[in-house]
Amino acid sequence: MASEIVNPTNELADAGLDPAFALHRGGKMAVTATVPVRDADDLSLAYTPGVARVCGAIAEQPELVHEYTWKSSVVAVVTDGSAVLGLGDIGPEASLPVMEGKAILFKQFGGVDAVPIALDCRDPDEIVETVARLAPSFGGVNLEDISAPRCFEIERRLQERLDIPVFHDDQHGTAVVTLAALRNAALLSGRPLAELRVVISGAGAAGVAIAKILLGAGVGDVVVCDRKGIVSGDRDDLTDVKRELAALTNRGGLSGPLAAALDGADVFVGVSGGTVPEEAVAKMAPGAFIFAMANPDPEIHPVVAAKYASVVATGRSDYPNQINNVLAFPGIFAGALGVRATRITEGMKLAAAEALAAVVADELSPSRVIPSPFDERVAPTVAAAVAEAARSEGVARA
Amino acid sequence: MASEIVNPTNELADAGLDPAFALHRGGKMAVTATVPVRDADDLSLAYTPGVARVCGAIAEQPELVHEYTWKSSVVAVVTDGSAVLGLGDIGPEASLPVMEGKAILFKQFGGVDAVPIALDCRDPDEIVETVARLAPSFGGVNLEDISAPRCFEIERRLQERLDIPVFHDDQHGTAVVTLAALRNAALLSGRPLAELRVVISGAGAAGVAIAKILLGAGVGDVVVCDRKGIVSGDRDDLTDVKRELAALTNRGGLSGPLAAALDGADVFVGVSGGTVPEEAVAKMAPGAFIFAMANPDPEIHPVVAAKYASVVATGRSDYPNQINNVLAFPGIFAGALGVRATRITEGMKLAAAEALAAVVADELSPSRVIPSPFDERVAPTVAAAVAEAARSEGVARA
Repeated sequence: MASEIVNPTNELADAGLDPAFALHRGGKMAVTATVPVRDADDLSLAYTPGVARVCGAIAEQPELVHEYTWKSSVVAVVTDGSAVLGLGDIGPEASLPVMEGKAILFKQFGGVDAVPIALDCRDPDEIVETVARLAPSFGGVNLEDISAPRCFEIERRLQERLDIPVFHDDQHGTAVVTLAALRNAALLSGRPLAELRVVISGAGAAGVAIAKILLGAGVGDVVVCDRKGIVSGDRDDLTDVKRELAALTNRGGLSGPLAAALDGADVFVGVSGGTVPEEAVAKMAPGAFIFAMANPDPEIHPVVAAKYASVVATGRSDYPNQINNVLAFPGIFAGALGVRATRITEGMKLAAAEALAAVVADELSPSRVIPSPFDERVAPTVAAAVAEAARSEGVARA
Repeated sequence: MASEIVNPTNELADAGLDPAFALHRGGKMAVTATVPVRDADDLSLAYTPGVARVCGAIAEQPELVHEYTWKSSVVAVVTDGSAVLGLGDIGPEASLPVMEGKAILFKQFGGVDAVPIALDCRDPDEIVETVARLAPSFGGVNLEDISAPRCFEIERRLQERLDIPVFHDDQHGTAVVTLAALRNAALLSGRPLAELRVVISGAGAAGVAIAKILLGAGVGDVVVCDRKGIVSGDRDDLTDVKRELAALTNRGGLSGPLAAALDGADVFVGVSGGTVPEEAVAKMAPGAFIFAMANPDPEIHPVVAAKYASVVATGRSDYPNQINNVLAFPGIFAGALGVRATRITEGMKLAAAEALAAVVADELSPSRVIPSPFDERVAPTVAAAVAEAARSEGVARA
């Protein structure tokens, strides 16, 4: 989802007139010791000679690494800086403020330690190899802001190779929160998911993952549009990922522009940027749901959307129903790490969406189909559901 | 330096009877946010949309990464788990308790954030490549517990490639503290360094680095011994590193066993383990200095050493004059990071040793040639000297 790009003059940055720069000075995070190191006795336990006994025990019984180190508390937030917010390909160093931001959200919302790892390489082979070499130190890997379609291959290969969760948040975090909002909107309007036809504008990381999770949750049909229009089997310009998408989606065999897809559609999900003309919105089915998640400019302005839709959501904090990944990733990783899951399965993602939706089940209204990011019930509820799903799917080690 | 190896039974570990295991449960460190994330306003500065302005500024002016991220506060503690304490090659996972210990010592003593990175690879090419790819996220790299001779090549190649300090603490930390102790012992006995002949037992990471720093500081002669005896040019079994050492050291052209080297020597430095027979010790020059640093069993027992030496040091906390790396690495990195040094030069290491020695200049005695690890003056004094040396050597960026 796009974000506002403002290139401040150096004067602005240096003078500290922009509060974002003042806040970022020196970075946003630190490491702390959780054990005392006050005197020689402390040192003899936390460091030599005591530490050698703990190392020796792990060397004999490798699974003890989860017990006696921070491995199972800490996630690597890995990027190559190739698709950072709406800024695009700004490289690893310039991506660090976002990765630090992600790390502190992990901590604040999920109690999960996280470390920014911005990589100076681009080739998927190199990224996969590098992350695999780092993996002994971490309990999970959150891939972040890696451009499509490389992100799909990198995630898949790391998942196949590692025995810890590898989760590309731009895909699955967004997908989980979108599904949760859709569940509640459907509940509110008394319509089963199976009867809904959803149009997704955007076939990048988020669009692909949303299409898959919605189909997995039983949504009737999904039609995905990229810049050239509806992703359909009759197109000869599709990437592998989009060809797979064409086979899974668009049961009605539609083709043409986004407007053709929206005609009679029940749901619009925007993860693309750009603007949808009002006349196309007007042709959606009565009581439609419009999730226009581009930031800072939703694909359909919320005021326009409200003329045609029964439920409106955006990616912005200043309108109701903010679709924000922070509702998902802290709880998902907290749950997965808590049971030392070897991976995050489709079932765990579906359970996360269901649990997230359930948080506001008793407070449902058109302006409240999803909890606030600051609702303290969210992360523990999601974590518990994810842990339970991990156990029932047999991927939990504890 | 060797450390005690105790393989506890699982019963001991599980029952928590060993306080080292109780202390290590869940690991020894955590990540914390240093900025507030209480509400939507906070989020809009620390994360989107505010963070995008900071990212954009760094993309335009790359050096701002030091200003607006934690990069210049954080060190990667990198190992491959191949030479961990006295445990040897126990692999990356089992090395993590040591790396976490190192990380919290960085914080406690130097105020430096540090992150354990235990790598699942062994080939020097792969380690160099992996660390180089990680480098954008870190202000420095502390190499740790990587076996010789690979450690020499890995450090050299990373130093050539990266514009941040790369420092193998098993080499240079030990060398700096040893030189500091030697400076003060020499001062106490009124003997110039240039008149001293030093025998080093051990030609691994620590032995090689100690030999080089002592020669750089103006010590008269150094003789290094490995398991086969004196490292001298007439041997045909030397590695590249030892061949270089043979050319730099042993000006007297000695050959034979350690005992031959000790005959008339002024200083013994033990970084090898093993035991030196008392009759060899007895042949050292009058008023010798004995630094027997193997842990937990010094090469020469301090009581025996005291019969022949004017100054005795060990690696143990329960005897006077503990040669402990924690006296060096936190201040060295704090000083280097503080001025955003591109590397740690020989001059910076010599300055660190001189500053460390000076901390106890007014308190010198045979049992006090080096400060206690808990002397709070140490890290700030070392950091200031290192920063000043970095500036005068032209490797400081701030």
